[in-house]
Amino acid sequence: MNLQTIYRGMKKNLREIETGLFEALKSDHIELQEASHHLLHAGGKRIRPVFVLLSGQFGSPSFAQLKSIAIVLELIHMATLVHDDVIDNAETRRGKPTVKAKWDNRIALLSGDYILACALQELCKFQDQRIHRVLSHEMLEMCRGEIEQIRDLYQAELTIHRYLQRIKRKTALLIMVSCQLGAMVSQTSEQVEQVLRSYGYYIGMAFQMIDDILDFTGTDKELGKPAGSDLKTGNVTLPVIYALKHLDPVKRKQIVDYLAHKGQSDNLTEVLEIVKTSGGIEFANQLANRYLHKALAVLDKLPKQKERDSLQRIAEFIVKRTY
Amino acid sequence: MNLQTIYRGMKKNLREIETGLFEALKSDHIELQEASHHLLHAGGKRIRPVFVLLSGQFGSPSFAQLKSIAIVLELIHMATLVHDDVIDNAETRRGKPTVKAKWDNRIALLSGDYILACALQELCKFQDQRIHRVLSHEMLEMCRGEIEQIRDLYQAELTIHRYLQRIKRKTALLIMVSCQLGAMVSQTSEQVEQVLRSYGYYIGMAFQMIDDILDFTGTDKELGKPAGSDLKTGNVTLPVIYALKHLDPVKRKQIVDYLAHKGQSDNLTEVLEIVKTSGGIEFANQLANRYLHKALAVLDKLPKQKERDSLQRIAEFIVKRTY
Repeated sequence: MNLQTIYRGMKKNLREIETGLFEALKSDHIELQEASHHLLHAGGKRIRPVFVLLSGQFGSPSFAQLKSIAIVLELIHMATLVHDDVIDNAETRRGKPTVKAKWDNRIALLSGDYILACALQELCKFQDQRIHRVLSHEMLEMCRGEIEQIRDLYQAELTIHRYLQRIKRKTALLIMVSCQLGAMVSQTSEQVEQVLRSYGYYIGMAFQMIDDILDFTGTDKELGKPAGSDLKTGNVTLPVIYALKHLDPVKRKQIVDYLAHKGQSDNLTEVLEIVKTSGGIEFANQLANRYLHKALAVLDKLPKQKERDSLQRIAEFIVKRTY
Repeated sequence: MNLQTIYRGMKKNLREIETGLFEALKSDHIELQEASHHLLHAGGKRIRPVFVLLSGQFGSPSFAQLKSIAIVLELIHMATLVHDDVIDNAETRRGKPTVKAKWDNRIALLSGDYILACALQELCKFQDQRIHRVLSHEMLEMCRGEIEQIRDLYQAELTIHRYLQRIKRKTALLIMVSCQLGAMVSQTSEQVEQVLRSYGYYIGMAFQMIDDILDFTGTDKELGKPAGSDLKTGNVTLPVIYALKHLDPVKRKQIVDYLAHKGQSDNLTEVLEIVKTSGGIEFANQLANRYLHKALAVLDKLPKQKERDSLQRIAEFIVKRTY
């Protein structure tokens, strides 16, 4: 089962959302439009729009509303990517040069602001204050997640608890909100909305854990950026936390030393190998699977309809994917 | 007439808004709170809250609503300042080190995002979609203004028209919106709202022109940042545009050369002197006064009440101020 098959029934709607994204970012300002369209052209899984579309089918969906909310969420996501690339000093994303690499940090900062402003303008189409409240709360939490990520950089003493808290803010909340808002704008029952919200949270957590594993196991080409980037840039993820806790002191010290040198040592390949053979990947996979099962379990509470199957298949794909 | 005298009747309300600003930026995240409170502690004229408060008095104001909208506007303003300092690589603002100087660019970028998210959360208190529309449109325009400013950096061939367009987006629109929203949340008549909006636009334009003049005529201490910063960082303002157009070719060439070296030459003092004696300061002052008179003229259309006098006095203060 690949993403293409799962997305099949939504193709037309996703194409319309794609057009909507380009339109939302249209500007008579060539630089702004180029920088933000650059990111759109690089593609992406558009997983947030997909969750919006599927969640909406459990109520009385209006495609216009689902499309708008999907555009808002994808734009917020894109804005954080552009600012993230400035913070991480990243050169490539999705196999293409980042905005900060192709232009510069200043343009990237402003493009992020611009994309966010476009999201807010699209959001104006909604009267329901609950939507505004959910999203603004979410954005605050995302900022907290970002700051936490900076504070935790190159720290060898991170706990799993801390890691989970961080990926929740960094990734899971926006996916959770995608499911919840898709339901909300389609007037599902309160109970269905909460189920979809929980599903989104669990699968968002699993999604980020797998992303963090792939940074160790994927190739540069599969990832669209250099493999091992996380460790190099000091983003201490689950496999590393596990390795630090379970390896013998000699190997442990090699990781600690690497982190202490803040990515400036030339033994990245060696340290990556230590982490890969520590059991950390398997541990992270197990935890991702636990979150997958939680996600699948809550789906049982939804009415039996084909979108429930799609949500199940996407969840399974997310945890099994290799890109 | 100084600002203290004009503000006198609003002291209590402004103090409450000040407390509200600190509360809006409260976080159990020490870094986020410290970085954003740092900016609050540095002070500022709080001119946007003042315009909100005064404009509201022409309708049926609720202080709670005026306070909220004032907080939203001041936070948006602050968020742009923090991001501006990253873009301009500025070390001091209001006599204190900038967030990017005291922490770093990454924290500054995220603090800006955080302050904006706090603004959006405060904004959630409002149901009226018109408020959301006005503000999101405004934020898009501000982004455009920022990008224009970057594109225009160190350009010797700028027109006055271009300068006016840039300061409109950079400054005038947010002041315009402050007056308009103060009126809107207080249910003034449509006509009064439009008058206040025009007043805000004119006085916002004059405000920025004077700011740009003070960068030439003020001292480091008065400005809270090094005098001549604009020219050094390539921000070509009205006095320079005038000088480039009216000076003899020899002096003109000195300015052009300075700009061509992108602030890396050591003859800043000399070039500043050339601009100061070119007649450019007087010209900019005249133009600021023209906008002042437009602002005063529209005030005549407001009902005669003490807030109209206050708006008049603030307008006059803004153009005569030396800090």
